[in-house]
Amino acid sequence: MSLTKSRAVHLITRPEGMPTAENFSIVESDLPEPNDGEVLVQNLYMSVDPYMRGRMREGKSYAEPYKLGVPMYGGAIGKVVESKDDSLAVGDIVTNQRAWSDNFVAAANTVVKLVPYDMDKLSSYLGTLGMPGLTAYVGLLKLTEPQAGETVFVSAASGAVGATVCQIAKIKGCRVVGSVGSDEKANWLTQQCGVDAVINYKTCGDLAAALAEAAPEGIDIYFENVGGDHLQAAIDCFNAHGRIAACGMIQTYNDASPAPGPNNLMQIVGKKLRIQGFIVSDHFDMMPQFRTDMTQWIQQGKLQTRETVVEGLDNAVEAFLGLFSGKNFGKMIVKLS
Amino acid sequence: MSLTKSRAVHLITRPEGMPTAENFSIVESDLPEPNDGEVLVQNLYMSVDPYMRGRMREGKSYAEPYKLGVPMYGGAIGKVVESKDDSLAVGDIVTNQRAWSDNFVAAANTVVKLVPYDMDKLSSYLGTLGMPGLTAYVGLLKLTEPQAGETVFVSAASGAVGATVCQIAKIKGCRVVGSVGSDEKANWLTQQCGVDAVINYKTCGDLAAALAEAAPEGIDIYFENVGGDHLQAAIDCFNAHGRIAACGMIQTYNDASPAPGPNNLMQIVGKKLRIQGFIVSDHFDMMPQFRTDMTQWIQQGKLQTRETVVEGLDNAVEAFLGLFSGKNFGKMIVKLS
Repeated sequence: MSLTKSRAVHLITRPEGMPTAENFSIVESDLPEPNDGEVLVQNLYMSVDPYMRGRMREGKSYAEPYKLGVPMYGGAIGKVVESKDDSLAVGDIVTNQRAWSDNFVAAANTVVKLVPYDMDKLSSYLGTLGMPGLTAYVGLLKLTEPQAGETVFVSAASGAVGATVCQIAKIKGCRVVGSVGSDEKANWLTQQCGVDAVINYKTCGDLAAALAEAAPEGIDIYFENVGGDHLQAAIDCFNAHGRIAACGMIQTYNDASPAPGPNNLMQIVGKKLRIQGFIVSDHFDMMPQFRTDMTQWIQQGKLQTRETVVEGLDNAVEAFLGLFSGKNFGKMIVKLS
Repeated sequence: MSLTKSRAVHLITRPEGMPTAENFSIVESDLPEPNDGEVLVQNLYMSVDPYMRGRMREGKSYAEPYKLGVPMYGGAIGKVVESKDDSLAVGDIVTNQRAWSDNFVAAANTVVKLVPYDMDKLSSYLGTLGMPGLTAYVGLLKLTEPQAGETVFVSAASGAVGATVCQIAKIKGCRVVGSVGSDEKANWLTQQCGVDAVINYKTCGDLAAALAEAAPEGIDIYFENVGGDHLQAAIDCFNAHGRIAACGMIQTYNDASPAPGPNNLMQIVGKKLRIQGFIVSDHFDMMPQFRTDMTQWIQQGKLQTRETVVEGLDNAVEAFLGLFSGKNFGKMIVKLS
């Protein structure tokens, strides 16, 4: 098999507020022959993640901004098509940071060989067994230290991170309350994932009241993916000594001008709350333990995974934009070939 | 000496927004003779503290609400005038929770005998060596773990808590930036207390810009006494892995309806900030170490203390109200006799 062309999505203008298709362009270019020490990789799956919105800003968010007029990047899974390096053979599966490109040539040491537990579940290494899964594992277990019997509230609870948080919390003996944006997602969480109560924030009316009803004993842990009203409701509902793992605040990402925060932050003092912001890349040392635990839980049937798969690089931008209106159910994946 | 009357300040109506003198009344009553196991105490000094505003609300803040029509309470220092208990002798100095009363009869085990390091510095046991000092000590040292060379930002920096935070941080080798509401307070901090830079938030214009200028290397720790704009400016100025000890948010205490919070909370994630709310009463186990360290620092001249002393129970309400307009310079004390 010979690949001579690469197609890649470029950011061409920086979005103000919600991005649109006009901010992006697909550019085709010739693929060079791999030199010594390089490989040619055909990407099979790429990830679209909310954090990528931060990279589209001019200023530094927690991730470096994407440059304009060059391929964007992010997590992907591919297979080696040609190798000029002894460490990789044709057919090897590799994780890489060259999402948004269908094929690429790169130094062999910029990709990581993967030995998947199941060749039919490759895309799970972009979700439950990948960066979003590790985010859930680290944020919940390391930063909030859940104890059996405690109540955990999870926003964006059916998402790539949230659904994993919910199920690890159940494995650890917690009561779990989730918030999602559709009844279908709510039903999946309660019926398939063992979540105790789920709020549809789009239809529940007063979110704080809905949370108080779903968690009459109060909450002890909040896994923060959303911000805004969700953070305010969580603070209102916290028991003393509550902990927040602050993973993201998707509600705020597309604000053209920043919206004010919750009006009840004083409760951080009175309830002695701890809020810990984190970025998963600081915690890659936990990857081996994470993969061991998670693979076991999946194989034992304790951890359900769910993906929304969009086909083709041409639809990758639309898949990304869909993250902000909840079009994904579980991890959003783009299948590239 | 015989005391037969007690005067005490009662809360008679709950304030909406900023309290006024009309919310309080001074009530005189007969003092009973102490029974066996009881003492008669004449209070010498009482404390007024911002947290007392929380007790004036109907709902529970972190402190139980004051009841209407009975004496309020809080930290005070008195001397034993009559004793019917072997544990206390006439003339003993005792700390007690009967602020807002000039004289009182109570069970001996509800007061704590104090052996002061200096009889002329009794009031310091309500400030630098008392609850506010312990608040500073615990919040800074235990919760934010300052390292030499780090930059610490302190709001309400000349107050009872803030000035102690500033000086402990200097003792620990940190660079310290304070925020205060007058140039006189700023001068005291820089000239007497060794604080590196002080912002007058009333005259500086854009607080975030002023903080960025005062801390060009960014801040690593924020000791939060104020909330609102101060919290927002601190978040903007934080370096990665910054820590916030959330002690209070005085700017918000008299809001009749709660004001929205900072619009930059997403930086908690990106900068991996940790916010820890706390109440000093959870940390009374640190009192012995605190008193040992602090007394030594004071005697070595490393820790300046400053008080504003108001005379007489009749002026106690005014002293309390003055806390919210910065009328205190250092710890606000009411001298009762």
